[in-house]
Amino acid sequence: MYNSFDLDETIVAIATPAGSGAIAVIRLSGKNAITIVDNLFKSKKLIEQATHTIHLGYIRDEKNVIVDQVLVSLFKEPNSYTKENVVEVSCHGSRFIQQRLIELFLRQGARMAREGEFTLRAFLNGQMDLSQAEAVADLISADSESAHQLALQQMRGGFSDEIQKLREDLIHFASLIELELDFGEEDVEFADRDDLKELVNKIQTLLKRLLDSFQLGNAIKNGINTVIAGRPNAGKSTLLNALLNEDRAIVSAIAGTTRDTIEEVLNIKGVEFRLIDTAGIREAGDQIEAIGVEKTLEKVAQSSILVYVYDMTTLKAPDVKADLDKLYKEGMKVLMIANKCDEYYSIHDNVRYHMEKEASEKGWDQIFEDLGTKGFYYREITAKEKRGLDGLKEDLYNAVLDGELMQGDVVVSNLRHYEALQKSNESLDKVLEGLQMGITGDFLAMDIRHALHHLGEITGEISTDDLLGNIFSNFCIGK
Amino acid sequence: MYNSFDLDETIVAIATPAGSGAIAVIRLSGKNAITIVDNLFKSKKLIEQATHTIHLGYIRDEKNVIVDQVLVSLFKEPNSYTKENVVEVSCHGSRFIQQRLIELFLRQGARMAREGEFTLRAFLNGQMDLSQAEAVADLISADSESAHQLALQQMRGGFSDEIQKLREDLIHFASLIELELDFGEEDVEFADRDDLKELVNKIQTLLKRLLDSFQLGNAIKNGINTVIAGRPNAGKSTLLNALLNEDRAIVSAIAGTTRDTIEEVLNIKGVEFRLIDTAGIREAGDQIEAIGVEKTLEKVAQSSILVYVYDMTTLKAPDVKADLDKLYKEGMKVLMIANKCDEYYSIHDNVRYHMEKEASEKGWDQIFEDLGTKGFYYREITAKEKRGLDGLKEDLYNAVLDGELMQGDVVVSNLRHYEALQKSNESLDKVLEGLQMGITGDFLAMDIRHALHHLGEITGEISTDDLLGNIFSNFCIGK
Repeated sequence: MYNSFDLDETIVAIATPAGSGAIAVIRLSGKNAITIVDNLFKSKKLIEQATHTIHLGYIRDEKNVIVDQVLVSLFKEPNSYTKENVVEVSCHGSRFIQQRLIELFLRQGARMAREGEFTLRAFLNGQMDLSQAEAVADLISADSESAHQLALQQMRGGFSDEIQKLREDLIHFASLIELELDFGEEDVEFADRDDLKELVNKIQTLLKRLLDSFQLGNAIKNGINTVIAGRPNAGKSTLLNALLNEDRAIVSAIAGTTRDTIEEVLNIKGVEFRLIDTAGIREAGDQIEAIGVEKTLEKVAQSSILVYVYDMTTLKAPDVKADLDKLYKEGMKVLMIANKCDEYYSIHDNVRYHMEKEASEKGWDQIFEDLGTKGFYYREITAKEKRGLDGLKEDLYNAVLDGELMQGDVVVSNLRHYEALQKSNESLDKVLEGLQMGITGDFLAMDIRHALHHLGEITGEISTDDLLGNIFSNFCIGK
Repeated sequence: MYNSFDLDETIVAIATPAGSGAIAVIRLSGKNAITIVDNLFKSKKLIEQATHTIHLGYIRDEKNVIVDQVLVSLFKEPNSYTKENVVEVSCHGSRFIQQRLIELFLRQGARMAREGEFTLRAFLNGQMDLSQAEAVADLISADSESAHQLALQQMRGGFSDEIQKLREDLIHFASLIELELDFGEEDVEFADRDDLKELVNKIQTLLKRLLDSFQLGNAIKNGINTVIAGRPNAGKSTLLNALLNEDRAIVSAIAGTTRDTIEEVLNIKGVEFRLIDTAGIREAGDQIEAIGVEKTLEKVAQSSILVYVYDMTTLKAPDVKADLDKLYKEGMKVLMIANKCDEYYSIHDNVRYHMEKEASEKGWDQIFEDLGTKGFYYREITAKEKRGLDGLKEDLYNAVLDGELMQGDVVVSNLRHYEALQKSNESLDKVLEGLQMGITGDFLAMDIRHALHHLGEITGEISTDDLLGNIFSNFCIGK
């Protein structure tokens, strides 16, 4: 357990949002938290009161001048967030009072808490592991339902449990190998090499699932980049506006109107999609347009969902295929949006027949078949009339979630965790390699210990000053 | 007691400042406050817990999905701010969580609290009188030490006590008169008219003191308008900058640089002075300057302190007298600031002697004598060298406070109270008039009842829907 932070000091900070409100809460944690407040709270002896009780009274300064009437909430160690004595002082919410109270507590011997220091203490005192502590910050900054649920799950230890399971299996593995080492030259094998290979494979399967979930987790946490692309005048901007119900993009009938990429956030059932409108894909007519197209490809590269919009009254299968060849990248989900369907159907009678015929004739089948293996959705809409948009939103949501998150699967959303999982996985690759090559137990043990080390970094069983500093400096003061 | 607000409903609001922070507090008040939270808080039955206790647990939505881990503080009626059941839910401080919890509580039957509705209920349920309730809003918006102390004193009932004393005396007076009325034609006088006259005089003395304190109280609450005036190049802007320790005004040696009035706040020992720099007073050289001078006079008219700065190396008594005649208004405090004293004394040897001689010779005596009756301070400074500024600040503070506030005197700071006191005083004037003219008891009683009515408006014993609506709509939501 890491321990160079000074846990002897009592820390204080405003815990509520900055500014003026009906009430504000000032939080103290540490050995002297209760006595510090007791010195200023003359109504009764707080130290003699039970934990988890609330006390009304006046805070007076050193000259006995009343500063405010407050409610004091007592949490006696270890029954508190930090496992230390914690006092929360709920005062009238003027900035002036908040400032005055903080000054008083500082003069009584508390010091200002650093960013995230309450949660750091909760971690150092064993209240939660590191990934749970990190989830507290995620929870506070979560601004969509799915990011919120993700953080809650991690805070409640869902992720830690998975890591713990992996570690236990590995530790068992490692100890058997190390037992062999104790016997030195005797050439015994407590650890059956085939069983071990199987175990590593099993662990790597779990690791791979966690690693794979990162793209989703990161997307949920930071929003999902969703690029809307297609030929000029296919109706991309009209679609964007229709989805957002406002005139965000400049829409005109002149092909090539949209030159700058435009980003908007669309929230579908608690998942945030960053919609990126783009310039039309075609051979660039002028210099600026060329830059627009280049930008489009850049944006596509940064996105995990491609919404490919085309005008079904004019565009033919080979053109669509050419565009998708240009735009598609591995792992991307594709929504094929056939726009202007009303117009199309008013031209063609007996539509289905026509379309299916046309499709088989002109290469559509091949396109759909290719996409079918890639995570693909097809939807006919008329953007101008907002027809088909509910279905499209449903497709977007399903493209990301596939019901994944809500089924309680653990999802990795933190880059630090992702990197540690990856390093752990690499060490296990070496273990497998070693087993293949029949290397000695001491080398195997070393690689296993590396894998364990990286898993331990996630939960904080292994941590350094720098690492903790980095993590908690991203917290807000007062948490 | 006024009662058309629906006290049967349970109200809810975010009590902490808007925005994201470590924690936020959502407050519910009303008959069902505890059961509403109980429906969502599955960890234990809150209704069975003691008042003033804190409970850790999860809030779950109707589908049993966890929304947040929270601390619930219980206050059972009548032991709460509103004297109703109150629950404070301390949650993680993301906007998202705050919003979600509010939505949940609304679905469970609470309704959004209106501005100040918690305090309105505290008033309606007899927890505090109206002037105390008003002080709660003042306390939250107080941003200087003196405004803060003023609000605290009023919240703690200092002002109410004074009003109560006045009312009791008057009620005694009124009942004696009304007793006479019961005896109809018998022409008895239970109330000795001379004693009554004396009593009214005594009450009016108290009323007058309260009324007089309003200028101070209002100044403390809203800051004290302090105008800096004087001839061009007297050093007004230099003085302002020196006081504020920054280059706020454009300072140049060219007379007439300052054309717009400039406002800055200077905090001296917890009292806020709004310093208003002005264009120089003289016959205007051009059109714009003429507007500047007019503005100066306007600003002087709005100020309760005049800081008159003059260049003591050049300006003579008759000029100073002419300026003061132009600038002075009744009731204003004047600080005579003789600037450039270093230069002056480097020119004149044996200074005091010279100055006193000059003074008596050239009309200074008369100026000082005139000002002496008006609340006047004299100070020599060299603004450029920041010499004499501490003394000047001391003068400013004394000009306002005269030690008044800190001696525990009750100060009126609320315009509504001031107007009610004034109306009460006018009714008492009529009582005295009536006594003088020997009018009958029934007329006397009517005027006394009017005086009582207006006093009752202050504490809320007399109140109307409109009045309460007006007062509490100035509160923040959640208080």
